[in-house]
Amino acid sequence: MILIRGGTVVNHDHSWRADVLVDGGKTVAFGPALDAPAGTEVIDAGGCYVMPGGIDPHTHLELAFMGSVSADDFEWGTKGALAGGTTMVVDFCIPDPGQSMLAAYQDWRRKSEKAACDYGFHMAVTSWSKQVFDEMEIVVKTYGINTFKHFMAYKGALMVNDDELYNSFARCAHLGALPLVHAENGDVVARMQESLLESGMTGPEGHAHSRPPLVEGEATNRAIMIADMTGSPVYIVHTSCREAHEAIARARANGQRVFGEPLIQHLLLDADEYQNKSWDHAARRVMSPPFRDKRHQESLWAGLQSGSLQVVATDHCAFTTEQKRLGLEDFRKIPNGTGGLEDRMPLLWTAGVNSGRLTKEEFVAVTSANIARILNIYPRKGRLAIGSDADIVVWDPSANKTIHAKNQISRIDYNVFEGFACVGAPVVTLSGGRIAFAKGELRAEQGDGKYVERPPFSPI
Amino acid sequence: MILIRGGTVVNHDHSWRADVLVDGGKTVAFGPALDAPAGTEVIDAGGCYVMPGGIDPHTHLELAFMGSVSADDFEWGTKGALAGGTTMVVDFCIPDPGQSMLAAYQDWRRKSEKAACDYGFHMAVTSWSKQVFDEMEIVVKTYGINTFKHFMAYKGALMVNDDELYNSFARCAHLGALPLVHAENGDVVARMQESLLESGMTGPEGHAHSRPPLVEGEATNRAIMIADMTGSPVYIVHTSCREAHEAIARARANGQRVFGEPLIQHLLLDADEYQNKSWDHAARRVMSPPFRDKRHQESLWAGLQSGSLQVVATDHCAFTTEQKRLGLEDFRKIPNGTGGLEDRMPLLWTAGVNSGRLTKEEFVAVTSANIARILNIYPRKGRLAIGSDADIVVWDPSANKTIHAKNQISRIDYNVFEGFACVGAPVVTLSGGRIAFAKGELRAEQGDGKYVERPPFSPI
Amino acid sequence: MILIRGGTVVNHDHSWRADVLVDGGKTVAFGPALDAPAGTEVIDAGGCYVMPGGIDPHTHLELAFMGSVSADDFEWGTKGALAGGTTMVVDFCIPDPGQSMLAAYQDWRRKSEKAACDYGFHMAVTSWSKQVFDEMEIVVKTYGINTFKHFMAYKGALMVNDDELYNSFARCAHLGALPLVHAENGDVVARMQESLLESGMTGPEGHAHSRPPLVEGEATNRAIMIADMTGSPVYIVHTSCREAHEAIARARANGQRVFGEPLIQHLLLDADEYQNKSWDHAARRVMSPPFRDKRHQESLWAGLQSGSLQVVATDHCAFTTEQKRLGLEDFRKIPNGTGGLEDRMPLLWTAGVNSGRLTKEEFVAVTSANIARILNIYPRKGRLAIGSDADIVVWDPSANKTIHAKNQISRIDYNVFEGFACVGAPVVTLSGGRIAFAKGELRAEQGDGKYVERPPFSPI
Amino acid sequence: MILIRGGTVVNHDHSWRADVLVDGGKTVAFGPALDAPAGTEVIDAGGCYVMPGGIDPHTHLELAFMGSVSADDFEWGTKGALAGGTTMVVDFCIPDPGQSMLAAYQDWRRKSEKAACDYGFHMAVTSWSKQVFDEMEIVVKTYGINTFKHFMAYKGALMVNDDELYNSFARCAHLGALPLVHAENGDVVARMQESLLESGMTGPEGHAHSRPPLVEGEATNRAIMIADMTGSPVYIVHTSCREAHEAIARARANGQRVFGEPLIQHLLLDADEYQNKSWDHAARRVMSPPFRDKRHQESLWAGLQSGSLQVVATDHCAFTTEQKRLGLEDFRKIPNGTGGLEDRMPLLWTAGVNSGRLTKEEFVAVTSANIARILNIYPRKGRLAIGSDADIVVWDPSANKTIHAKNQISRIDYNVFEGFACVGAPVVTLSGGRIAFAKGELRAEQGDGKYVERPPFSPI
Ligand SMILES: [Zn+2]
Ligand SMILES: [Zn+2]
Ligand SMILES: [Zn+2]
Ligand SMILES: [Zn+2]
Ligand SMILES: [Zn+2]
Ligand SMILES: [Zn+2]
Ligand SMILES: [Zn+2]
Ligand SMILES: [Zn+2]
Repeated sequence: MILIRGGTVVNHDHSWRADVLVDGGKTVAFGPALDAPAGTEVIDAGGCYVMPGGIDPHTHLELAFMGSVSADDFEWGTKGALAGGTTMVVDFCIPDPGQSMLAAYQDWRRKSEKAACDYGFHMAVTSWSKQVFDEMEIVVKTYGINTFKHFMAYKGALMVNDDELYNSFARCAHLGALPLVHAENGDVVARMQESLLESGMTGPEGHAHSRPPLVEGEATNRAIMIADMTGSPVYIVHTSCREAHEAIARARANGQRVFGEPLIQHLLLDADEYQNKSWDHAARRVMSPPFRDKRHQESLWAGLQSGSLQVVATDHCAFTTEQKRLGLEDFRKIPNGTGGLEDRMPLLWTAGVNSGRLTKEEFVAVTSANIARILNIYPRKGRLAIGSDADIVVWDPSANKTIHAKNQISRIDYNVFEGFACVGAPVVTLSGGRIAFAKGELRAEQGDGKYVERPPFSPI
Repeated sequence: MILIRGGTVVNHDHSWRADVLVDGGKTVAFGPALDAPAGTEVIDAGGCYVMPGGIDPHTHLELAFMGSVSADDFEWGTKGALAGGTTMVVDFCIPDPGQSMLAAYQDWRRKSEKAACDYGFHMAVTSWSKQVFDEMEIVVKTYGINTFKHFMAYKGALMVNDDELYNSFARCAHLGALPLVHAENGDVVARMQESLLESGMTGPEGHAHSRPPLVEGEATNRAIMIADMTGSPVYIVHTSCREAHEAIARARANGQRVFGEPLIQHLLLDADEYQNKSWDHAARRVMSPPFRDKRHQESLWAGLQSGSLQVVATDHCAFTTEQKRLGLEDFRKIPNGTGGLEDRMPLLWTAGVNSGRLTKEEFVAVTSANIARILNIYPRKGRLAIGSDADIVVWDPSANKTIHAKNQISRIDYNVFEGFACVGAPVVTLSGGRIAFAKGELRAEQGDGKYVERPPFSPI
Repeated sequence: MILIRGGTVVNHDHSWRADVLVDGGKTVAFGPALDAPAGTEVIDAGGCYVMPGGIDPHTHLELAFMGSVSADDFEWGTKGALAGGTTMVVDFCIPDPGQSMLAAYQDWRRKSEKAACDYGFHMAVTSWSKQVFDEMEIVVKTYGINTFKHFMAYKGALMVNDDELYNSFARCAHLGALPLVHAENGDVVARMQESLLESGMTGPEGHAHSRPPLVEGEATNRAIMIADMTGSPVYIVHTSCREAHEAIARARANGQRVFGEPLIQHLLLDADEYQNKSWDHAARRVMSPPFRDKRHQESLWAGLQSGSLQVVATDHCAFTTEQKRLGLEDFRKIPNGTGGLEDRMPLLWTAGVNSGRLTKEEFVAVTSANIARILNIYPRKGRLAIGSDADIVVWDPSANKTIHAKNQISRIDYNVFEGFACVGAPVVTLSGGRIAFAKGELRAEQGDGKYVERPPFSPI
Repeated sequence: MILIRGGTVVNHDHSWRADVLVDGGKTVAFGPALDAPAGTEVIDAGGCYVMPGGIDPHTHLELAFMGSVSADDFEWGTKGALAGGTTMVVDFCIPDPGQSMLAAYQDWRRKSEKAACDYGFHMAVTSWSKQVFDEMEIVVKTYGINTFKHFMAYKGALMVNDDELYNSFARCAHLGALPLVHAENGDVVARMQESLLESGMTGPEGHAHSRPPLVEGEATNRAIMIADMTGSPVYIVHTSCREAHEAIARARANGQRVFGEPLIQHLLLDADEYQNKSWDHAARRVMSPPFRDKRHQESLWAGLQSGSLQVVATDHCAFTTEQKRLGLEDFRKIPNGTGGLEDRMPLLWTAGVNSGRLTKEEFVAVTSANIARILNIYPRKGRLAIGSDADIVVWDPSANKTIHAKNQISRIDYNVFEGFACVGAPVVTLSGGRIAFAKGELRAEQGDGKYVERPPFSPI
């Protein structure tokens, strides 16, 4: 048993002074001054907040992508997560061309055996056929996956067209699953890329120019319309710009069920990074959508404040500088992705809570409770409550942590947040009732995490 | 002890099958199959939802207003509330001209001794002076009132100007109180009234024409700006139209803390009522803001769905037909107000949940949990949780109830919802752990209710 | 010579009392009391407005479409136009599958020889290839066509995808031509059609359900984004709904050059028509986009008032009832199109000017001057000025005209505006300096019209 | 006679190559190669645009204001105007407290006798009474003034409240006059000023902080609502920020007749100026509304592009540095105002036309034609046409002119645009058919200007 003593418990809708008792992987009691049964390990949470562990619903661990494999696998990705207060990740299971979803699922289960924290999968729909139609049902009913991912970009690879989106969204609605969308107009991106390369722009700045905010705003608007036509809710991943956010907000203002997920990167970093004279510096920041002009950040923050955006994620997909250099001659070949799993929670606390933008309860909402509800695993995850999984972070709001690649758990050789001074960080992370991280020391082992099944028909 | 057996517990963020045990006025246990200790009264909730009792934050019981006194006093208003599943009301304490807030508070405590359910007060700021400035602190710190009401209409009576709003909002921000606003441009309403009367329109339809949506939208926008300038959040009462809702939504989209409260009347009834050939019919529906064209209803519903509007209230202020007839010659003299306390919950369930607009969890949010959080009495009120007040409604989603004035508890002789067929109604209401209403029979007694103090600095 | 005496000249920006002298096909003088040289024909315009003849930029005369040929050819279409005060039409030259633009142009020139008023063409881009790329230049430079039409709907037939739109828009930008877009998401329309037919809905009401406003709003938004990416302005034909209008207005509010064209049908008729029990009645009104709910009309009118929409057209594409019956078993086979050429100006005057929505100058703007400027033929067309083509309508604002199919010039057997009582109608129409219509009598002959070349790089 | 040879005539809706012949103060002929009668003065306009002279509808010449008198009187203000291509100004006639409008009008006529270019007045309504009501009619019918100005700010001085606005707007509607509004919430400004001074901020930066964009946006929204209630159009002067522009655009999008006037200052200068370490530098830029953050500029430019804003003015109200120093101890005492009359046209051309934001025709629209139409003096002013006043500017788009106070005509000792390098400037300005300015030399004399009467009921 573990007793977390002296802290303030923070849920998405309420906070109060209470000790928390954990046993058998579950939270079993709250109280103003709980007794510690013999043998209980006591964690001093004085001056700290005791919060549901973070959930990162957008990771790509050990992903074969663009001729490379992302450098953080399920072991190191989840270890980083735990060190940063995140206790569950949801990764994208993406079938190879021609591969069945069922086979892909098996591959992902195999890769994820090493996970140090709990995890689940989204399944990608990258083409449409009778087989896909049939397998979606198995994925939902047998594998406990209630979300399907769709790419409107990556033309010639993962991209699906409007007809396929319609079919898949309609199928999702029938199965009680939620469609997720990477929203960029892939046709236009491809043409912009060609056009920029023809004009001689081969460096990372070309990546940003080839996928401007309008291209994302358009696709977001389109995905939302298609969802509405099929009677399905829809979740837009990595909402990075005002135009996309406004498309979401417009739909919500009409009563439609639409969710938006800004990444911690887009909340804090901007397109000036691509102007850096160092190719490496710029290329390390290549991801899709790219970082945006600063004015977009205010829109994303306001979305979190007003509830038109619900979830902060990372799209953690880490590539080393060496891997990035695959695109030295052509920005289209730079593997897309950055890290963030270890840093999301301290960064968001620093920029969001310390600045007064978000209350601490809203911090819990956007890092954990909202996505748990959306994914239909609440309150098992996402809430501190009796009977819930003991995925708990003891958060010291006065802890200082400056981000340095040299200290990070991620396997890559840089950090896009290098030098950010965070105030507010986890002192202890409990995962499944065990101390996974404490006082700077990682105790979790590979394989500690469990696969989390998620039933369809989320009530949200 | 009372055991509610076999129902589905519904909170604003989650529902699950559980029995609920109540003791000493509090909820003490949840479980899939709780034992009933000897002497326990067992309520069969099979097929029912077990929800937090409703909170109506906008009532005017026994209010002296416009030359009359509203016909439902704290006894009959609260009894109606309980019969409809509402277990707490918040009434507006409005000082007479020249009266101190402290004296007004004593008057309201006296009037409210008869209340059959729990209650609290908002305090009205109807002028500005050193005395008002000083008394606001006492009201907050001594009386446990954390909200102040401001009228931008009722020129020559309750209306305050922009300077006074600024002063009071700034004072609220300092004290951790929340300003509430009745938002209509009183100057323009007064001029429109004159102009309509000059043109010979003296009937109730003139009431509606004199306060069109633009007039409310403008004042809402203005109140929000003033709140922003003073660093205060703001709560707009009886948001009735698209223009007002959009002003709120715009501010929220910029990250400002603004709340909006549609009334059940404006969600369901429209301005055609004022065209009724019967003067009585139309006059009974005279309230401010008036009912609006149907297109406004869609905006209000979408606001509840998307979260840009948070609370459904009634502005219950009941006048008999005889009282209404004070304005036979001049619509300005018709006492403003309608009933709704008994009907709010079944009507909202029918039109909101049965139609698919709202989930049952959202129903709890907008009838109870949201306002409890805003008023800083959550989770004591607004949530079914261990230790919370046992204000509970057992809700039968298949119960049929057609609204008829002849069956109502309210003291007035009509009901503006006459003939509405509700599907979904309370079968049992618990108030403070006692059965206040069961199977159509009212058991609560006058004086059963308690005054609820509310601390300032709500975390929301 | 012709002298128009005693009227008020109305241009888009100014009106004044003046006589107008016409000679040699041109307007040659204005003055308060011009002398009539010997042999001058004098038209009494007392109490009348003397305005630039209308330009209808959206007609389909003698179009082979959906297994039929539209019933009004260039002769009868343009004769109807003249009777209604319209003195120029712009028709869509649509190559057959595999046909070159150059051959299509020749076909259209041949068909249009019968035209009784001046005319021009837009050229449709229905696929993409090196040949199309090359021919576009010839179309612009040799044929005097400065507009290219694109269909985002009619999947499997005329529809082009985003890649093709991008290519063509970029080519337009290079050539100084303006892309026009029929904006509906063809993929989604096709799927909605299937789904409705599967559910057993085969009648004309299915047509409307298969292409709801969101589907048009989405495509409009997409076309605008693609135009912006290519640096091209864009013109959206038949803007029928709030969602499409708002997409246009949003883009304009960001400084983008986007134009929108509501049809007189969508301004006045609504979707209730498709509920008519008579299959014929409903089928005669089948066009794309379909008529919309009334609430959309207010949006379109406000767009004309505020300048976010610029042009009122007809999409005149008339099919007889017999032709419509091709779709008796399947709404997809009902030839799409309605008439309107003869009725546009009186209807718009009645509903727009007499209602106070539009000034008479704005009437000239949206029926003539704006499109003349957009098409780069201003002030030759679209303005009464010295040296301009004498395409002039003498408009009696007090003339009564009730629309009846039995009196119309169009070759079809019904009129979708049957029974509309117009107040305001042409008494005389001059086309190229000749009296084409006077006092109810048509004087124009087939072949009187001339082909109008339009240079690229419109300054608008 | 004067012949302007070889230029391109530019009107708001069309441009063409033509010579222009001027005689007797009017434009009398256009033609590709006009003959110059004997004695004609020929102006070479080769490579130049020949445009309607600018109209600045917002000046305060020789205004007694805030304890000072603005330094440019009608002589020097209008001479600067002519040197910059502006040939008419409209000044604000502002009665002293208690003074009748009729007396104020006489004062203004006296002051304006020195004007070197044509001029007119707006009349200010600074209080409400039977006398004001009556005098408004005389002002319109006898004095030829069709506009009334209202201040929502300057509390305790010029400010009027909502009731007074309503009365005056209704009166305007009856008389066919157009209400103009200075839109800032005066109550809130006054409270913000106090609060900033209390906090110790006494310098010019306090001026900006005391009147933030929200305060202007609110008042703009309010004025528009009141105008709508009275059935009057409304014109918002010096629209400086996104919030105000959006209020205007919202109203226009609903079909309301609302006009907005950005100043050249707000289009080009931003709030950083108030952070300048030099008190003089910052104080010289004190005007109301103050300069805004850069992001507002994009909104104003887009408004001009899309037509939701119609007019670019200056609010020319020049105070010397010495005058500004009246507010050394208290920013509230710094006389509000800056210059701009000489610079408006070259600055707008440089930043608007050379940047591609505006076409040359749109330049004419926003500097001259639109306001001429709004003020009902079109096409006498605002258009080059036969019979129009020969107020003409010959514009060399390649002329370079860098703004320096030492070269300016204005009587003040600095220029807020100091150092701006303009490309595009007048080479010759004709005023009333005479050469007022040519090749850098001012030829106009004091008293050359004439008072321009403006009839009510503008058709716009
Ligand atoms: Zn992605
Ligand atoms: Zn991703
Ligand atoms: Zn009220
Ligand atoms: Zn009330
Ligand atoms: Zn079409
Ligand atoms: Zn068409
Ligand atoms: Zn001003
Ligand atoms: Zn001014």
